[in-house]
Amino acid sequence: MTTVYLNGSYVPKAQAMIPVEDRGFIFGDGIYEVVRLVNGRIFAWEGHATRMANGLDGLRISKAGAESATLKAVCEKLVADNGLADGEATVYLQVSRGAAPRTHHFPPAGTPTTVYASASPFKPNFAMRDNGAKGITLADIRWARCDLKTVNLLGPVLARQAAQEAGAYEALLHRDGMFTEGAATNSFFVLDGVLRTYPLSHYILPGITRQVIVELIRELGLPFEERPVALADLPKVSEIFVCGTTTDVQPIVTVDGTPVGDGKPGPMTVKLKEAFAKRLYGK
Amino acid sequence: MTTVYLNGSYVPKAQAMIPVEDRGFIFGDGIYEVVRLVNGRIFAWEGHATRMANGLDGLRISKAGAESATLKAVCEKLVADNGLADGEATVYLQVSRGAAPRTHHFPPAGTPTTVYASASPFKPNFAMRDNGAKGITLADIRWARCDLKTVNLLGPVLARQAAQEAGAYEALLHRDGMFTEGAATNSFFVLDGVLRTYPLSHYILPGITRQVIVELIRELGLPFEERPVALADLPKVSEIFVCGTTTDVQPIVTVDGTPVGDGKPGPMTVKLKEAFAKRLYGK
Repeated sequence: MTTVYLNGSYVPKAQAMIPVEDRGFIFGDGIYEVVRLVNGRIFAWEGHATRMANGLDGLRISKAGAESATLKAVCEKLVADNGLADGEATVYLQVSRGAAPRTHHFPPAGTPTTVYASASPFKPNFAMRDNGAKGITLADIRWARCDLKTVNLLGPVLARQAAQEAGAYEALLHRDGMFTEGAATNSFFVLDGVLRTYPLSHYILPGITRQVIVELIRELGLPFEERPVALADLPKVSEIFVCGTTTDVQPIVTVDGTPVGDGKPGPMTVKLKEAFAKRLYGK
Repeated sequence: MTTVYLNGSYVPKAQAMIPVEDRGFIFGDGIYEVVRLVNGRIFAWEGHATRMANGLDGLRISKAGAESATLKAVCEKLVADNGLADGEATVYLQVSRGAAPRTHHFPPAGTPTTVYASASPFKPNFAMRDNGAKGITLADIRWARCDLKTVNLLGPVLARQAAQEAGAYEALLHRDGMFTEGAATNSFFVLDGVLRTYPLSHYILPGITRQVIVELIRELGLPFEERPVALADLPKVSEIFVCGTTTDVQPIVTVDGTPVGDGKPGPMTVKLKEAFAKRLYGK
């Protein structure tokens, strides 16, 4: 029986219920994180905790009960209690503005937030990481605060559904003619021998894995710019990968049915995939 | 004790709980409506029911259990059972894609949706309708499918909060230099003697009250265009009102602290306010 965390208690998942008036349900008024654990150790906790705190501050949701140390202990206990301390796991964390009679504006100060966390076993798809996956291109129709990791996620939901129906793994979103990021990943491109990714802004999520990749790029001395790639330049792109907490470094080898480069994971992608795996698994 | 409707049952509100894995809570993956009742009679039900069906189709959420006749009966029973059949009331209706293990793409076919409805007493602010209210201008940062009445509502939540903190009733949103709509209303402007509102598109909600207002404008023979008004033309605007299911026709008499026209509800606004009240109250 799976145990989850809800508002200070550890309860069986089937008993973890929230009121219909929770603003997470009524407005998508909340912030979330997904963290990765290897043998009970959270990868890049500080990055996730800082981003969650920034998101809660960005929406002006109270951090009471969602302090970094509290949530870290919750993650570790959930993983231990659910028998996930050996091997790989993820923990999903969400904080909503809590339950209150429906008004668009914020509820009265002191309204308790809802803090929820749940652990799951995780099994990376190593074959897909090695062989590459399919991508599609799709207009980025999301709002202008994609830097906040909110649960207003219909854009990514519809984009991932479109990808899946096209037999693809991810949708490469583009706004104003420029690739921004994937539906649930950050995207990297090699153009004219230079690795490029969209710069941090209101239009992309500041990915924790993205940040690690940028560090690895610098360690490896690969040519790199935080500069958007135009959709129109796709035919000249020689490598693409997407990255994220459950995606690691995932080569994209065809886009909209057309091979990227020679249709195999490219050399910079493979180098980063291996360097990232070392960082993640510590070996 | 308030009784609400949840998935086929009428239950006390305090017992109306949804699983933490409900996609309404995790992704904001749902559609909602708010309807207005006067003496137990739903105003413009067909419009609301059709828009809800269109929204569910737009997100490809099953309409099973959320058919127009079912929901209409739910509204009427909730209003009767909660002692709201005399005078004014609202009913909030929401359908989410249901509870399922978290994946961005849709859950397996047959996953039951969550259908929730709740009735509340309603008291229009007649003094504010008569005297006018304050507005602010704000960048419209929402996604590009504002025509769907989804619960991805953080844009409106933040905009309404900004309005409230400015002592205003509504935020007049603008995108690409043009007024689109209010945070939770449609907006109308009089410029050079002509009533104007943003045309139906992906950037505004097809408001039910907006539709009634357009009918009334034609009945009254007022000069009218479905054509955006530029933010830059605000100094030349002589009247503004916003409208919605709980807003009726609400004059906006100052914007960002500056009076609109002579700072009083204008003549076309007042005509429409009166005509709308007649339509709503049937007298």
